[in-house]
Amino acid sequence: MPVNLTSPVATQLLPITGVLLGVAEAGIKRPNRNDLLVMQLCAESKVAGVFTKNRFCAAPVIVAREHLAQPDGIRALLINTGNANAGTGEQGMQDALASCAALAGLLNCNPKKILPFSTGVIMEPLPVAKIAAGLPSAVANMRSDNWYAAAHAIMTTDIVAKAVSKQVTVDGVLITITGIAKGSGMIHPNMATMLGYIATDAKVSQQLLQEMVREVANRSFNCITVDGDTSTNDALILIATGKSGLREVSASDSAAYRTLFEAITEVSIFLAQAIVRDGEGATKFITVKVEGGKDIDECKKIGYAIARSPLVKTAFFASDPNLGRILAAIGYAGVADLDVAMLKLYLDDLLVAENGGRAISYREEDGQRIMQNDEITIRVLLNRSTAMTTLWTCDFSYDYVKINASYRS
Amino acid sequence: MPVNLTSPVATQLLPITGVLLGVAEAGIKRPNRNDLLVMQLCAESKVAGVFTKNRFCAAPVIVAREHLAQPDGIRALLINTGNANAGTGEQGMQDALASCAALAGLLNCNPKKILPFSTGVIMEPLPVAKIAAGLPSAVANMRSDNWYAAAHAIMTTDIVAKAVSKQVTVDGVLITITGIAKGSGMIHPNMATMLGYIATDAKVSQQLLQEMVREVANRSFNCITVDGDTSTNDALILIATGKSGLREVSASDSAAYRTLFEAITEVSIFLAQAIVRDGEGATKFITVKVEGGKDIDECKKIGYAIARSPLVKTAFFASDPNLGRILAAIGYAGVADLDVAMLKLYLDDLLVAENGGRAISYREEDGQRIMQNDEITIRVLLNRSTAMTTLWTCDFSYDYVKINASYRS
Repeated sequence: MPVNLTSPVATQLLPITGVLLGVAEAGIKRPNRNDLLVMQLCAESKVAGVFTKNRFCAAPVIVAREHLAQPDGIRALLINTGNANAGTGEQGMQDALASCAALAGLLNCNPKKILPFSTGVIMEPLPVAKIAAGLPSAVANMRSDNWYAAAHAIMTTDIVAKAVSKQVTVDGVLITITGIAKGSGMIHPNMATMLGYIATDAKVSQQLLQEMVREVANRSFNCITVDGDTSTNDALILIATGKSGLREVSASDSAAYRTLFEAITEVSIFLAQAIVRDGEGATKFITVKVEGGKDIDECKKIGYAIARSPLVKTAFFASDPNLGRILAAIGYAGVADLDVAMLKLYLDDLLVAENGGRAISYREEDGQRIMQNDEITIRVLLNRSTAMTTLWTCDFSYDYVKINASYRS
Repeated sequence: MPVNLTSPVATQLLPITGVLLGVAEAGIKRPNRNDLLVMQLCAESKVAGVFTKNRFCAAPVIVAREHLAQPDGIRALLINTGNANAGTGEQGMQDALASCAALAGLLNCNPKKILPFSTGVIMEPLPVAKIAAGLPSAVANMRSDNWYAAAHAIMTTDIVAKAVSKQVTVDGVLITITGIAKGSGMIHPNMATMLGYIATDAKVSQQLLQEMVREVANRSFNCITVDGDTSTNDALILIATGKSGLREVSASDSAAYRTLFEAITEVSIFLAQAIVRDGEGATKFITVKVEGGKDIDECKKIGYAIARSPLVKTAFFASDPNLGRILAAIGYAGVADLDVAMLKLYLDDLLVAENGGRAISYREEDGQRIMQNDEITIRVLLNRSTAMTTLWTCDFSYDYVKINASYRS
């Protein structure tokens, strides 16, 4: 079950003026569930996105990148679950374009103004006919207060829908931000995780919005891992409808940008963490902080070595303070000139290791007590310089675990 | 249970003239099992080794490296299980040296002629007193036909002991090679996996023996992964006693070297594969061949991305031909200029994917049939150039699996 994550409350999800959402049941994979989402945007909307760096990226990712690059703006987003349209070659491209054309026909716009997204099984043909047949119903039920249904419609193995709203005041104008995301497995984003959509009624210039989404992704979705597998379909999309009445934000050094950026980052971190809390089989939510590095790159190397290690993850599932496994992961992270005698390892506020070995003050029962918690922070102080990073991950539960968890008992 | 791996037959393990082995029960962790091994070598023996690249490498690894570098030769190897003496700081170094001193006292030699090795829990102090107390019994029972007991004495989570012998004729002289290894978890060797010992009665110059062990490791232990975790204690040791009567092999371009190298590589691959077959929770043995790369480095990147992917490994456990997961792993392996439309993916001899998507000839039932087997080859043809590599791994079984295995059903 998801770790300290409950389903969003529909009434707490705030509409974004300029965004309408419609869902439908196209029967792509499972019966009796919505698997199609259309997000229609007002004409003035600016849209920016970041996508997976997987070389086998899905056809809709290629099409969405191209459509985002054309200058006429985006009119709608089309998202299906049940099929990733990835590893589908030339046919996949045709299918993605055909889906865009079907929605464009209903919305009476150029197909290039549609961004397509797919999530689900890889290497199976996209059922375009089912999608085309489901679209009229999705378009017919479009509403601005439909974010709750939208968050549910994009789920695959997710147990809980991920959605959140936030309001901030910028230059005296109330700005609203609402975001949804999905993801539970194949989570090791290298750009952003499959399907994050964040909309705001602030007005932001196209160039600045693209800068913002990249930086927001680096601080949120690019800081999580569930199983170390980078998806073929990752995408984080940021939409600014400009309907709030706030003047356009166009300078990255302005106070308005700063406030907006912080609020959108907060929404994005909530959604990214929600994906980890709902990670496949997760029973614990683990924060990995690496501080005092020479640069962020080495902090991330060490953080991800810990966060990806099956041995570390199974020890956390078992609440077994077999913390030497964390040292082993730090050691193989690939930081060639790392002096292990210089670093300190903490579990929450408990000093575990220093001077290349277990801290003299460390007592097993203290480690044991912290390991019982369902939210734990691993903190590594490298004492090399000032760079730092924070990552989020979950444990590996059940039987893979059983074997490693019984190693010390 | 180990995949197609049975316990070695004691009588099939051939003594190596010049090597005596003694085991003992020191009570380091569990009662009633041997956890101490002494291998005494004749004075003429040459010894070479490769060790983990983990920055948190264990104290015995540091000591063994130093002792190997001194010119007076090695007289004995001392191996304990139940405690890794890793992440133990300065005390760990003292403890490793004290263990060497204890054995040197019994063998009446310089402690620098002892190579120490430890395997087990990380970040706990080595119980030197127990080891010192157990040594006299180990030394007292040293015999040349003790390889079977030795293979058992070094096991930790291993279910089956790993040992093999091989004989080849070089320049008319019969040469014998016997090797033992241990390992089941924390297996992603970056040099060699924790505790592999191979001895031969051939005579090999020190320099050539070091070249040989490095190359042998690269073709065997450095080609396996179970969980992606590189151990703090990995070591592969190659011993040449020179007792066979064959003249010294000292040129790497000689036919004698070639024959010996191939035979030792074969022994090493058997042992490395045995570790994978006995990988924690393994139910399938998977060979990953990547061919047609620009260089070995990119072949290994792609091979390890596949071999480490929890999603690929769980699909194999479930016998589910969800083979798009292999494409996803190829895509995120980090080969920046990879053209996915050029590659071909095979499962055994079955063409699965080409032209960036599923092969037209591929039928799900054919994939399904191959996935039932307990030994399967994944073959990726990159069509970029001529480099190639072969790796070996196992599946991820049980519950971590359950979640991913039910994703398509």
